[in-house]
Order: sequence, then structure tokens, then C-alpha cells
Amino acid sequence: MPVRLSSTGLVLDGQAPVQNLLRFLDTVLRGIGQVMLQNNSYAGLLFLLGIFCNSALFGCAVLVGTMVSTITAILFGAKPALVRDGLFGFNGALVAIAVIYFLQPDALTWAYVILAAACTTVLMAAMLRLFDTWKMPVLTAPFVFTALCFLLACARFGRLQSTHVLPTAGLPKAAAIVEGIVTTSTVLEGLFNGVAQVFFQGSVITGVLFVIGLLISSRRAFVMALLGSLTGLLVAWLMGAAEPAIRSGAFGFNSVLTAIALGSVFFVLDKAAAAYTLLASIATAVVFAAISAALEPLGMPALTLPFVLVVWLFVLAGAVFPALRPATVA
Amino acid sequence: MPVRLSSTGLVLDGQAPVQNLLRFLDTVLRGIGQVMLQNNSYAGLLFLLGIFCNSALFGCAVLVGTMVSTITAILFGAKPALVRDGLFGFNGALVAIAVIYFLQPDALTWAYVILAAACTTVLMAAMLRLFDTWKMPVLTAPFVFTALCFLLACARFGRLQSTHVLPTAGLPKAAAIVEGIVTTSTVLEGLFNGVAQVFFQGSVITGVLFVIGLLISSRRAFVMALLGSLTGLLVAWLMGAAEPAIRSGAFGFNSVLTAIALGSVFFVLDKAAAAYTLLASIATAVVFAAISAALEPLGMPALTLPFVLVVWLFVLAGAVFPALRPATVA
Amino acid sequence: MPVRLSSTGLVLDGQAPVQNLLRFLDTVLRGIGQVMLQNNSYAGLLFLLGIFCNSALFGCAVLVGTMVSTITAILFGAKPALVRDGLFGFNGALVAIAVIYFLQPDALTWAYVILAAACTTVLMAAMLRLFDTWKMPVLTAPFVFTALCFLLACARFGRLQSTHVLPTAGLPKAAAIVEGIVTTSTVLEGLFNGVAQVFFQGSVITGVLFVIGLLISSRRAFVMALLGSLTGLLVAWLMGAAEPAIRSGAFGFNSVLTAIALGSVFFVLDKAAAAYTLLASIATAVVFAAISAALEPLGMPALTLPFVLVVWLFVLAGAVFPALRPATVA
Repeated sequence: MPVRLSSTGLVLDGQAPVQNLLRFLDTVLRGIGQVMLQNNSYAGLLFLLGIFCNSALFGCAVLVGTMVSTITAILFGAKPALVRDGLFGFNGALVAIAVIYFLQPDALTWAYVILAAACTTVLMAAMLRLFDTWKMPVLTAPFVFTALCFLLACARFGRLQSTHVLPTAGLPKAAAIVEGIVTTSTVLEGLFNGVAQVFFQGSVITGVLFVIGLLISSRRAFVMALLGSLTGLLVAWLMGAAEPAIRSGAFGFNSVLTAIALGSVFFVLDKAAAAYTLLASIATAVVFAAISAALEPLGMPALTLPFVLVVWLFVLAGAVFPALRPATVA
Repeated sequence: MPVRLSSTGLVLDGQAPVQNLLRFLDTVLRGIGQVMLQNNSYAGLLFLLGIFCNSALFGCAVLVGTMVSTITAILFGAKPALVRDGLFGFNGALVAIAVIYFLQPDALTWAYVILAAACTTVLMAAMLRLFDTWKMPVLTAPFVFTALCFLLACARFGRLQSTHVLPTAGLPKAAAIVEGIVTTSTVLEGLFNGVAQVFFQGSVITGVLFVIGLLISSRRAFVMALLGSLTGLLVAWLMGAAEPAIRSGAFGFNSVLTAIALGSVFFVLDKAAAAYTLLASIATAVVFAAISAALEPLGMPALTLPFVLVVWLFVLAGAVFPALRPATVA
Repeated sequence: MPVRLSSTGLVLDGQAPVQNLLRFLDTVLRGIGQVMLQNNSYAGLLFLLGIFCNSALFGCAVLVGTMVSTITAILFGAKPALVRDGLFGFNGALVAIAVIYFLQPDALTWAYVILAAACTTVLMAAMLRLFDTWKMPVLTAPFVFTALCFLLACARFGRLQSTHVLPTAGLPKAAAIVEGIVTTSTVLEGLFNGVAQVFFQGSVITGVLFVIGLLISSRRAFVMALLGSLTGLLVAWLMGAAEPAIRSGAFGFNSVLTAIALGSVFFVLDKAAAAYTLLASIATAVVFAAISAALEPLGMPALTLPFVLVVWLFVLAGAVFPALRPATVA
């Protein structure tokens, strides 16, 4: 049978053109799924649907970015198993959506998207090699560094026009007053926006579709995503963060990813791992606040850098703490 | 005999509750001693005494921080030998004093201290694993990164109030005029303040108690601490640094630590190592000036980052220079 | 025969004083050649000539810096083969010219040059050890980090006077208008200035002497240098960079080095490597724009950091892409 459905997506045995095309499309969907660490094309499809629900422009950007970074990996001969798992797709997906979110989508910007997506593949390969020494996951670091680089470069490139949603460059100062009042609607919207913001989407419906995608792929990832979003939100509330930032999900999306990664991917979930994941999710909210302030003089957003840094450290440290048992798949 | 005194602290053979408590307290004192690279509870006790002489608040912070980070390591099952040497204590000690120094000490801040101290333990474990590849020491890096992160986050957290001793955020510009005149009192105060500033203390008496603690633990560390402080001070004076900064010990404390580390811990002290330690101590003063300027747009202090960076590089480079012989304990 | 000429410089068999002196001078010239990755004393001589043509002060700085960093390596016993290849010279050459370019050349500045050049040797040794894990080249990273450090420190050191060619510290903002019109003379001058700027020289004649030096050492390096400069320039033009920056070679010198490194040193030049080198050269121009903006709040120049980062990543990634064949010498 040339095409079968498995629990994670299509299984294709032959090399006929139609099969190759289907395999490529399934690979692209897995790439989109990997943004939330799901090697699962149904999850990828749900994520894509969620984005298209909110904006066709962003949906196209995700498709273009994932395809370009995947094709770049194929052209330079990257290991087919890695490509097939979508590991050369998710950074391209995110960098494309980031460039289109922050820059006016004209022809030059689309060329810039393609260049950036190709660069994430090189960066992914470089970091795979670098981190192999410690069996450490690369996560979305190639996206973060490529996006920061391509967005910062606009300060020198007069033909790229910003959409004016980038933060204004300024010197950070200690927040003096707690801004706004957190209500039930702040918490409910923030909870789902936190999941949606993983793909730069500020939409509760998109967030709901994302968590359905996660549920299809992994019940544990689904629970962790919601708990992570909630943790980030509660830390921000407790510490007196601004209400609009809490409502928008800004304090949630990094904790969503941290909780999925530590609570459902890299460790066997026992009591110690649960406590560890909770500590990491809280720390992620603090690191988000810190990095968002640290990038203020450059007028740059924190993106998923807090998630990347915290998960790197907690995965590395896991090897030193016998109380934590690494999951075999990690 | 259930309790004995060795040259570095208590020796306890059994597992009775009193013994376990004494062992824990001895471990906490070693953690405080490790701030100046001394696995010695008498040194730790003298350091603690020096801090309490200057401020009971800071003394309590050091105790809380060291205990929390040590307990976190025990809970996650870190190797008992490492815990016993105080290696999971010193970063907690420093991060606690830093948070209490820069933020108003209310209940939320103390909760923040506990969270930060626990995070230094994860960061310590992560860096132990990372640096194992090169047999490189972690030093106070977990403190530096955690403190910068938790202090920067205050720009987003309205319920944390600064004590207004953080540097004002601004753009660095070349110093135009040499500020103030260096006198004998500048040099004498700067010499001991330089040692005291390792724990954020601006007090000559505290500095004197610290060097007595070092003398008890290691004569060589004692000499190196004073020479390091003097070197940092003289470089700053020669290059035209501001007199108040020289007097406060700001240019000294990183060189103190560099001189102790290279001149009494990591290398066998012969002529080559002495020249190497001198070069490193001078470089540390320059790196302090640079990092303090680099962090000016964020309004953040350099902390012990200059010491950490310089000692990492000089220890790494030592393996390439046969003229330098590594000490076996390192 | 005590002295022979090989295709890369002098060959000396004995240990007579004259031979040792000649060997040292030949080593210094190789160090200057290594700035453009040429282990070739004729190339080094041409580069030195090119610099003296433009400015005797910079020529002297290059000589002093290369000598000091080379002697430091010899004193600490670095492996003679590495020293002989000029690997402990090129970072000293560059840091000396950078300090003299940005600071008034008085006695204190020259002492600062000597200290900085000695520090590049320690940094080179440290990074050789660090990168040995991945067989990754250090490139000009020791120069970049030492120069940034020593220049930033001037914000605290009142006796060091700037030459006012450092960028003004400011907050980066998106470039709004394309500044100036690119003409044939922009392209022609920019092409050779791009090569000259590798040594901070803004002179077409110096650029011409540099490419002649490359031609003597390696025809492929010569072609790559010109193509790299052209690529950087064209990317900048296409993206709407300011005309004076394009003319000055600011967008070229990093791409020059990237193209030489990837197109003539680290990979066997086939179709895949050519595409890879082109992608890297384009990326280098974007990374230059980004780093130049990122360092704007500190008033610091990007130096050759873009080249260093891009080549590190592309060399690392090369191990993951079987389409690229590493050159055996690398």
C-alpha cells in the first residue's frame, strides 16, 4: 500500500513523484508541528489552520518559510531522517512569520524571508553539530538568532520598511506603577493568547485550535501547554506586570514551550520532574521580563529566547541531578 | 569520635540528626568560603562575621541564599561530595546579597531571593556539565547570570522596588576628564574595600576580616587577594579612573578573585605563573571597565563577570602554554 | 644552505642568531598574512607595504602588535609550529591597528597597545583549546573581543583620548530613507576599499596592493576576495544602505574574509561550495548591518565579528551537509 496513515502522519513507502510530493507536504506539516515540539503532521495541520483563521498572510509566510528551510536542507544533503521529522522546517516557519509580522510585505521583504529561512537551516546544522557534544536540543535558537539579525539589519537597510509593531528602542527603567487591573477576562484571554503567541498570533480562537492540535498529538503536551501558559500569566500578575501584556499572552508563550519541553518531551514525568518543570516555567517568565528589558535599547522583541535558554540549562542540569530521569526519545 | 575539627572545618562520621545538622551548617559555611574559592568553613565563618559587622540584613541574606541553593541541590540529588564542598552554596550566597542590595527587602523580594537562589543551583549544574568537556571551573557565573536576569526583570515587574543603588541607564561615552585626586587614603581604603566588595560590602573593617579569613585558610590566597586588589587599584589610577570608584574598591574586587584563582588555586606558583597572574589581574581591571560600560545602557552592574571571563580564558589558555603547570587540585 | 626561499616565505634550518632573527621576521610577516588567512610571508609583506603606503603610523602599529603577540606566545611556550605559521601574530596586528586608529597615539596608548596584543595571545590560546572539540578555526575572534574590551574601557579611563572616529553611541532606529546615489565610482572604490578595510585602511591603492599580495599567495583567494567585496557591496546597494558606507567598503571587508575562508580555505570548491560561499557572503552583509546596529548603543564598531560568526556557523554546518567536502588543510 503506497500511502498509509499512522498516528503521527503519512507513511509513504515508494519514490513515485506523487509519493515524493506527499512526503514533502507531510514533512512541511511536521515542520510546523515541531514549533511546539510535535513530530506530528496532524498537529502541524491544526497549527496551520489556526494561523490561517487569524490571517492568510501569516499562513502563507509559515508555508513559504517551512518549505524554503526544508528544501535548503535537502539541497545540501542533510540526513533524510532529520529532514523527514521536520527538524529543518520549524525555524524557517517562525523566521518567516516574524519577518512578515515586523516588516511591510513587499517583494524585497519576501526575498528577505527566503534568505532568512535558508539561513536558519545553516544555523540549525551548525548548532546540531555544536550541541552534539552534550546531546543537547537546538530548539528554536536558529529562528531567534536569525530573526534578531535580520530585523536589526533594517537599521542600515533603507528599502526595508517596518510595520511599526517592533518595540520602540529606549533605555529600560524599573517599572514604577502596576499598570491596569487583572480580571477574569485577562486570565482567560491571556491563557489562550499565550499559546497562540508561539506563532505571533494574538487570537483566542487560534490558541484554541493550537491546543486541539496538541491534544491530537499528545495529551501530556496539551496539559503542559495550558499549565505553562497559566504559570507564566500568574507569575507576571503576582510580580505586577502590566495588564495588557498579561492579556496579550506575552508572558505566556515562552512558558508554554518550556512546560511542553520539560514536562512532556525531555524528562519522564514524575514528582521531581513536575517540580522541575514548574520551577523552569516560573523562571521562564522572569527570564522573559529580563530579556525583553535587555533588548529594549535595540528595540528588539525577546521572541522565544527565554524558552531556549531556560530549557537548555534545565536539560543540561538534568544530567547532574539523578532525581530526574531523561525520556529515551529526547 | 562523632565530631572532629580538621584544618578546613568539621569532620562528621555518623548520620545522627545532630551530626546531619552540623554537617549542613558546616556545608553552608564552606559555601560562603567558596565565594573566594576557599573550601574552608573557618574562612566562611570569618566572611559571614565580616558581613554581619557591616549589616545584619546582608548577613541574613547570605545565610538564606546559601541554604536555599544548597537544599535545592540536595533535593534534586546532586553528588554529595560536590554539595559537601560548598559548590552549590556560593552562587546562592551572592545572588541573595545582590537582590537584597539592589531591591527593597519586602516579602515579595525575599520570595524572589529564594527563587533566584534555587535557580543558581540549576545553572551551576548546567555549567558543571557544559564545562566538563574542558575541565573548566564554573566560578561565580551562575550568580552573575541569575542576578543580571532577576534585576533586569524589574523593568517589567511593578511590584519590585529598587533601592536606587543600581547604576542609572545611559549611553556610555569616553571619559573626558580625570575625576578627583588619588591620595594615600584612597589607596589604603581602596585596598581593603576591594576585598570587601567581593560580597558587595563597602567597609574597610569587613575587608580586614575577609583577609583574616583568607589567611586562616591559605597564606597564598591571603597574599594574592591583597596583591590583586592593589593591582586593580593601580591600573585604574594609572589609566585615570575616577577617584571615588578607586576608593570604593570597584576596580579591585574582580582582580582580587582573579589573583586568588590563578595565583593560588589553578596553577603551581612559579615565575611563569606569577607573570601570568599579574597579566590576568591587569586585564581584569580593563575588562571591568569595559563590562561596566557595556552594561550602562541597561543600568546594570558588572558584578564578578570580569573575574569569571578572565579566569575562564586564562585557565583554558594554560593548557596550550606548557610554561604553566596546572595545580593538581584544580 | 642556511636560508632558502620557498613559495610561502623563508626556510631556515639552523639556530644561529641571524637565522633566528630572520625566522622571527618571517614569522611576523606570516602573522600579517594570516589576517587574510594566508600563511605566506610575501603576502604579509605586500599587506604591510599597502598599509605603510597609506600611513606609517598604522604600519608601525601592525609591526608592534604582531611582534608583541608573537613574543608573548613564545615566552609562554606555545607550540613552535603554530607560532611559526603566524597564528599568534594576526590578532595582535589587528588589535594594535584598531587601538591606534580609535585612540590618540600617546605613550599610554602605546602601552595599552602592548597590553592588548599580549592579551590576544592568551585569548587565541584559550579559543584554540575551546574549539579543538569541534576542529573549528578561531579566526579573528581574539582581536574582536580584545579590541571591543579595550575600547569600551575608555569610558572609565580618563587618560585615554579618543580620535573621534568611533561611532557615536545612540539608539538604533529603522533607516527611513535611502541615503545618496550609488554610481560607478561608488562601486569601483567600494570594491577595493572593501579589501583595504580588512586592516582599517580607507584607500583604493592599499586595496590594490592587498589583492596583489593575495594573488602571490593564492589565485583562488584573490578571486574570492574581489567576489566577496562585490557581493557585500551589491547586497548593501540592493537593500538600500547609505551610499557613503557602501563607497567606504564598510559592507565589503567582512564578506571579503568570509569568501576567502569558505571559498579558498575550508572547503573544496565545487558547485555546492560555491553556492554555500555565496550564501555566506550575502549573509555576512546582513550580519554586518545587524551587528553594527546592535553595537550602536555602545558606540562600538562591528569590526570583523560578522565574518567570525558567519564562518564559524558555516564551517560547523559543513560537517552536517555531505554536499560540502572539507579541504584537508583546514
